[in-house]
Amino acid sequence: MRIALLGGTGDIGRGLALRWGRDTDHELLVGSRDPEKAREAAEAYIEKLDSYGADAEIKGFENAMAADRADVVVLAVPAYHLVDTVEAVADRLDDDTVLVTPAVGMQRDEDGFHYNRPGAGSVAALAADAKPDGVPLVGAFHNLPAGGLSDLDADFEWDTLVFGDDDDAKAIVTELAAGIDGLRPLDVGGLANAPEVEAVTPLLINVAMENDDLHDLGVRFQ
Amino acid sequence: MRIALLGGTGDIGRGLALRWGRDTDHELLVGSRDPEKAREAAEAYIEKLDSYGADAEIKGFENAMAADRADVVVLAVPAYHLVDTVEAVADRLDDDTVLVTPAVGMQRDEDGFHYNRPGAGSVAALAADAKPDGVPLVGAFHNLPAGGLSDLDADFEWDTLVFGDDDDAKAIVTELAAGIDGLRPLDVGGLANAPEVEAVTPLLINVAMENDDLHDLGVRFQ
Repeated sequence: MRIALLGGTGDIGRGLALRWGRDTDHELLVGSRDPEKAREAAEAYIEKLDSYGADAEIKGFENAMAADRADVVVLAVPAYHLVDTVEAVADRLDDDTVLVTPAVGMQRDEDGFHYNRPGAGSVAALAADAKPDGVPLVGAFHNLPAGGLSDLDADFEWDTLVFGDDDDAKAIVTELAAGIDGLRPLDVGGLANAPEVEAVTPLLINVAMENDDLHDLGVRFQ
Repeated sequence: MRIALLGGTGDIGRGLALRWGRDTDHELLVGSRDPEKAREAAEAYIEKLDSYGADAEIKGFENAMAADRADVVVLAVPAYHLVDTVEAVADRLDDDTVLVTPAVGMQRDEDGFHYNRPGAGSVAALAADAKPDGVPLVGAFHNLPAGGLSDLDADFEWDTLVFGDDDDAKAIVTELAAGIDGLRPLDVGGLANAPEVEAVTPLLINVAMENDDLHDLGVRFQ
């Protein structure tokens, strides 16, 4: 499978690239608005993986070029860039491309982090509204701490919640998630169930902030 | 400690009564609007616990009578009865009584369960607005499946998130939670952080509905 990580130079993109690079044979396309930055990141990930004995195929491209080449396009960008990013790559997507959103909207106040639910209903719904009709959208990889994901010395047992209205696309993303050691994908229904998934991320940060012995938290349903 | 479980004949009240009855020496007061129902539930819990070799002190009272006698008052009622219940017992509460809300507001549609966030900001905020000034309010015990909690043959490793603006009251509730075998209380800050905690409960139900091998789910942060 060819996976494009748009915004793949960022924290969560880096974590997914390193994990897929080590644990699977997928071909990874790091996307960025700046193609030079994308190429540098791809080289850094290859070098990092090489130090772990993993021979990964990773290339860097401008976002639209990465999306054009991919079977699965992960929108690993901040929520406030999500719609821009989808629009920038829209004409490179077709019905065979699976679009994946891990994006979460948060705001911070004096008490902690809070889920900033968009008027559309969820951050995922913003992406659904911006994408071309017919391109399936799946939500996944929301509640993963970028630090722990990027640290290849860290083992974990985390769940990732997968939602979307296209069952075939969900099955593809579920398999991609299951390819990462220690990550368990769980079905959580359709796009309408996105808000409660997205709201877990600020909660994880609040728990980590308030409990000295906990950091880089994921979640496990048991 | 004397703990009143208002609405203690319901699912979550039953679960907490059985767990505290087995795992601790706390005196438990089952509250109900109907005192006869409360007494019957108390007797049923004692009988159940006796079959597990536990000798628990549990009595049944009308809600206000239970609240009057208690150090800690748990509002184990549905969200739509929360304000009524607080108002009904308000003149029995004082600054030494800790009020605890495990209540969550949910609605169901064709996609699944959703967090029904009140205009006040959270269900806990509704209780905070309804209680007498000076009585401390703590949120805890939201994300626990009543079935698993009530089944004394079930072992679990679940977290419960504790929030509130009164640190002394939070410390008391944290200790009560830690008294239940397998339950780990985690601090999640102040009352303003309630919505993301309350929103986890519909998510747990959706995950259980969509994954055949998972049921009676709690959550663990790790």
